[in-house]
Amino acid sequence: MIKIGIVGAAGYSGIELIKLLLNHPEAEIVKLFGHSTVGQRIDQVHTSLRGMISSEIEEFKAESLDGLDLIFVALPSGQSMNVISEAYKKGIKIIDLGGDFRLNNIEDYKKYYKHEHTAADLLDKAIYGLSEWNYDQIKTAMLIANPGCYPTSVLLPLIPLLKNKLIDQSLISIVSYSGTSGAGKSLAQNMLYSEVNESVRAYKVGSHQHIPEINRFLKHFSGETPNFSFVPHLLPATRGIYTTIHAKLGEDVSEEKITDTFKSTYTNQPFVRLINPDVPELKDIHHTNFCDIGWKIVDNQTLVVFSTIDNLVKGAAGQAIQNMNIMLGLDQITGLLKQSKKS
Amino acid sequence: MIKIGIVGAAGYSGIELIKLLLNHPEAEIVKLFGHSTVGQRIDQVHTSLRGMISSEIEEFKAESLDGLDLIFVALPSGQSMNVISEAYKKGIKIIDLGGDFRLNNIEDYKKYYKHEHTAADLLDKAIYGLSEWNYDQIKTAMLIANPGCYPTSVLLPLIPLLKNKLIDQSLISIVSYSGTSGAGKSLAQNMLYSEVNESVRAYKVGSHQHIPEINRFLKHFSGETPNFSFVPHLLPATRGIYTTIHAKLGEDVSEEKITDTFKSTYTNQPFVRLINPDVPELKDIHHTNFCDIGWKIVDNQTLVVFSTIDNLVKGAAGQAIQNMNIMLGLDQITGLLKQSKKS
Amino acid sequence: MIKIGIVGAAGYSGIELIKLLLNHPEAEIVKLFGHSTVGQRIDQVHTSLRGMISSEIEEFKAESLDGLDLIFVALPSGQSMNVISEAYKKGIKIIDLGGDFRLNNIEDYKKYYKHEHTAADLLDKAIYGLSEWNYDQIKTAMLIANPGCYPTSVLLPLIPLLKNKLIDQSLISIVSYSGTSGAGKSLAQNMLYSEVNESVRAYKVGSHQHIPEINRFLKHFSGETPNFSFVPHLLPATRGIYTTIHAKLGEDVSEEKITDTFKSTYTNQPFVRLINPDVPELKDIHHTNFCDIGWKIVDNQTLVVFSTIDNLVKGAAGQAIQNMNIMLGLDQITGLLKQSKKS
Amino acid sequence: MIKIGIVGAAGYSGIELIKLLLNHPEAEIVKLFGHSTVGQRIDQVHTSLRGMISSEIEEFKAESLDGLDLIFVALPSGQSMNVISEAYKKGIKIIDLGGDFRLNNIEDYKKYYKHEHTAADLLDKAIYGLSEWNYDQIKTAMLIANPGCYPTSVLLPLIPLLKNKLIDQSLISIVSYSGTSGAGKSLAQNMLYSEVNESVRAYKVGSHQHIPEINRFLKHFSGETPNFSFVPHLLPATRGIYTTIHAKLGEDVSEEKITDTFKSTYTNQPFVRLINPDVPELKDIHHTNFCDIGWKIVDNQTLVVFSTIDNLVKGAAGQAIQNMNIMLGLDQITGLLKQSKKS
Repeated sequence: MIKIGIVGAAGYSGIELIKLLLNHPEAEIVKLFGHSTVGQRIDQVHTSLRGMISSEIEEFKAESLDGLDLIFVALPSGQSMNVISEAYKKGIKIIDLGGDFRLNNIEDYKKYYKHEHTAADLLDKAIYGLSEWNYDQIKTAMLIANPGCYPTSVLLPLIPLLKNKLIDQSLISIVSYSGTSGAGKSLAQNMLYSEVNESVRAYKVGSHQHIPEINRFLKHFSGETPNFSFVPHLLPATRGIYTTIHAKLGEDVSEEKITDTFKSTYTNQPFVRLINPDVPELKDIHHTNFCDIGWKIVDNQTLVVFSTIDNLVKGAAGQAIQNMNIMLGLDQITGLLKQSKKS
Repeated sequence: MIKIGIVGAAGYSGIELIKLLLNHPEAEIVKLFGHSTVGQRIDQVHTSLRGMISSEIEEFKAESLDGLDLIFVALPSGQSMNVISEAYKKGIKIIDLGGDFRLNNIEDYKKYYKHEHTAADLLDKAIYGLSEWNYDQIKTAMLIANPGCYPTSVLLPLIPLLKNKLIDQSLISIVSYSGTSGAGKSLAQNMLYSEVNESVRAYKVGSHQHIPEINRFLKHFSGETPNFSFVPHLLPATRGIYTTIHAKLGEDVSEEKITDTFKSTYTNQPFVRLINPDVPELKDIHHTNFCDIGWKIVDNQTLVVFSTIDNLVKGAAGQAIQNMNIMLGLDQITGLLKQSKKS
Repeated sequence: MIKIGIVGAAGYSGIELIKLLLNHPEAEIVKLFGHSTVGQRIDQVHTSLRGMISSEIEEFKAESLDGLDLIFVALPSGQSMNVISEAYKKGIKIIDLGGDFRLNNIEDYKKYYKHEHTAADLLDKAIYGLSEWNYDQIKTAMLIANPGCYPTSVLLPLIPLLKNKLIDQSLISIVSYSGTSGAGKSLAQNMLYSEVNESVRAYKVGSHQHIPEINRFLKHFSGETPNFSFVPHLLPATRGIYTTIHAKLGEDVSEEKITDTFKSTYTNQPFVRLINPDVPELKDIHHTNFCDIGWKIVDNQTLVVFSTIDNLVKGAAGQAIQNMNIMLGLDQITGLLKQSKKS
Repeated sequence: MIKIGIVGAAGYSGIELIKLLLNHPEAEIVKLFGHSTVGQRIDQVHTSLRGMISSEIEEFKAESLDGLDLIFVALPSGQSMNVISEAYKKGIKIIDLGGDFRLNNIEDYKKYYKHEHTAADLLDKAIYGLSEWNYDQIKTAMLIANPGCYPTSVLLPLIPLLKNKLIDQSLISIVSYSGTSGAGKSLAQNMLYSEVNESVRAYKVGSHQHIPEINRFLKHFSGETPNFSFVPHLLPATRGIYTTIHAKLGEDVSEEKITDTFKSTYTNQPFVRLINPDVPELKDIHHTNFCDIGWKIVDNQTLVVFSTIDNLVKGAAGQAIQNMNIMLGLDQITGLLKQSKKS
């Protein structure tokens, strides 16, 4: 059994990690770290865990890491650096669910995250954990920068299209809608139920911190640097991201070519479901690690691509465990997906 | 007092018309027509109307129109033609909230609405009721084709941009999210609460009946024929449409130019609120006849425009009454908007 | 025109008052007072008000009251006393939407509201604004303690049953579900969308501050002091209260007797709708000042009574304006309800 | 591996069974039966199952049962009788999630279910599957009548109170709120999203088919025949039941006595969580087989008890699998609950 610590256990990614790991045959949750919740039992903080796990939450100290094989870090931006430095020194595997190690340019980091980076020396050690595209690197990594929720929903459909030069790069518009759990538990008036319910609003238009992440890894995995616009919206729902992408079809590119490309890219990937000619439905991926992708050509020249993920699973804790499985040499789906023997 | 009949009183547009007209100082609801609800009182069908109005619903007959000044027709596509022909013959003013008189090409009509048009002779009598753009025509019209909900949310922001050649026309992507009341009361498994709640799905991608309507009236009012893609999505909410439009900015077009254009177009229009640099929030237009428009330029080259309307008000019953006001020579806002004397 | 001031304009009751008063033919909003929002325009705080009213929010000062005829006070408990004392001294009519003047026992006040009362001298001046039961007193009042939302939904159905001795008083169980707007805009983790959505929880069981209010006014209006239990729950919805009451039927009381009593009590009250044998539906009272009441006898011995109100209208701003109308000698429904001339 | 058939695979209980069984280490889904969906793959009907199971749905025939060890029957009332008779004859274990074998009185059945019973000879073979109270009987049963969702949420808290004579039996009021999935996928206008969202309504007051089931099994397990009233309400949420029960405390019964009774009854039951003095929160039991129970005495004389279950899990598919585990001699929690080794 691999011995696991979770840093930031009291948040929404924290509880999702705990629920998924309880179901994992090779993992044992050994330590839970928190801050304002120290001294409480985890099932007092997340009352849904009663009857499942009742470990006490500890304050993080470097020496508490001893004996652990791997830690998941689910902290707000800027708070993970000390924890990660300590763990890295001790040779403990690290999967960071936050954004601190996803960018390699500290100017971009400061611009989008609004504070300085204090562990820049580790940036080049961090491996981006987009499981389907970085498998070999993840396998031997010590520090994983787990992808952001929006970037996961954008990169999975866009990389193969760009890499295979199937779309025009002069304007790719990306419209995403996310459930509220993406915002975590922080208090803000505009996240109150009365404000979100029955409403929608776009936010951080042109300034969202996931823009440089999308930018970096579109280039990294496809080799291309398209002009894209990413506009996130808040959905009156708790979970899930629905992403709708428009691009002009490349010259002489047929729908068949698009379909072939998606199939050759993802057919063997257990967590990418190609559902064309259907269109994804958000609830189909709730509580799963799937990314559903659909597409359609309209007017012979415009490609519309849809993707859906559960922001807390494939967009956070699920992909983190998928990466853990890869790092440990396990089947990617271990603890994440059961398939019928007959299917 | 103008004497009003409502044909199709039992649907969602029907009840919205009734509630708005009860609040209108110059209008009197004289007749309510239905079909499967004939013989019931309107407050038995829409129980929220108890204590407000209790008229009986009648089966439509041509002679029942006698004495009416104006009828609103809120019927499913294909069912309004006979009613409208009869009323037209009698010289009664007609505002049709359905889609039967919005297209002038009966091939398009058949393709998108899936049945034949049976009153093609009236098509060229119908005036499109986009109040802010067709005021003079509406003023003297006998038959108004009230705009569709999505087209209203798309045309109001796009017409001035196209007319003033501010955006590139090679790819305009339009992503709309609508509440469920847009689908009316018809029974369909995928409109059940358990199916819609916490979910999102795109639908009728490339085949929605509002596409030819947008196409026709973009050209009609702006003179341009851009290449656009319109993708509607179902939102887990009852009311409202949120539209997010992407276009490449025209050459040498500044944000100031965009802003000036919107201002010069809409400043005197009481129901268009320009809220740049804010971004619209869906709940701000609930139960109002407003269309809120916001915009932002990202990366110096891409324009993102947002618009919101209440699909049952500005997207249906509210704009219909706005048009009635225009037809009757009343102030447009009569019965629809109260403004502070001090504001 | 009566000149109105609103103290606490930035909250949910504040905006509801503004929207209703804009629609009131005899009222003019002259002053808006706030605290953390001072200096902002009201349509910057409540963006839905754009295009309707744009007055600036002022800090409350005694001299600002000069020229006003009536103020609505919509402040958190404990914050209204100074404002009300100042207005009372100046002879300005006051309608307090908060709980500070609803109890006459300062021990109870302290126990349930958790702080001292600092204007106890005014307690016996305050008239409880349950419009249907206190009309004559309200008519001549200078200071109205507007009822709480839950008490309104409980008192209207229960008073006639108790007064006419139709139910057993040994155990009356009252189960209420309220939308989240009842909790206002204060920040609390358990009011975040992600926490409330798809969930329900009972709260303040046996300790809610509306218990002594229900207790006091059940006795005041019915003369009886029954044993009741009131349990509020949080509903995943923004607006509305649904109250389900169980009581044992009094000996030899028939359903007819119950029905006759409700009818003789409320038939002439425009805002109470008796809908037996139907059962109320929450959405029917949204955005209205109605209280819908239904009832049913089960097993020949148990009476179940249902009532619904919109917590922000009949449970707050609407009843406040109903009381204003009574104080001013206007028809109760002025600005609150339009009825068909034919109904 | 036990070979499983599911009859009625296309409904909400069907998909829940499939998802839970895929996660069960000892069960293999071998056959899926449907009716209007025959010939489709199960992942075409429930698209969320893509990538997990793709078996074809068959029309039920007696001979298709050969080779199966156990069937789950999840059919609308009245449709299960033939299937169950056939399976019973073949000696295949049966767990019926519907209501057809829960009552032993065919007059009651006809009165509440509105049709005749056509397999009355099997009624006395059926064992009621309230796992926590009927373990020994379930262990050797061939035909399980799995409890209704509301009865599960009512019986678990009430049986120990009645059995130990802790509450007065003259009036027990039971107010339940259920998510919409309890109504299944049948088309009804009042189950449309636009009708349910933001609303609440009580329904089947005094006439719900779960009333005789509660009545029968309260008596069966507690020996008492109290006077109770059960009023179900529809909640604007997909999943979960929240039940609030009021009863007068028995003479000289202390809170300690109540607590001791619940503890001695349920401490060793893995799926009943006693959370007093907390109050249950609906979302805590989502997607679990738990029933959470909380309680509080108010005014020294009234007991309020709360219980929550997920209507599709503990109220249907989950309890069905719990019963399967008992029938097969497995640990009750197999495939339903993972507990931390350290908790």
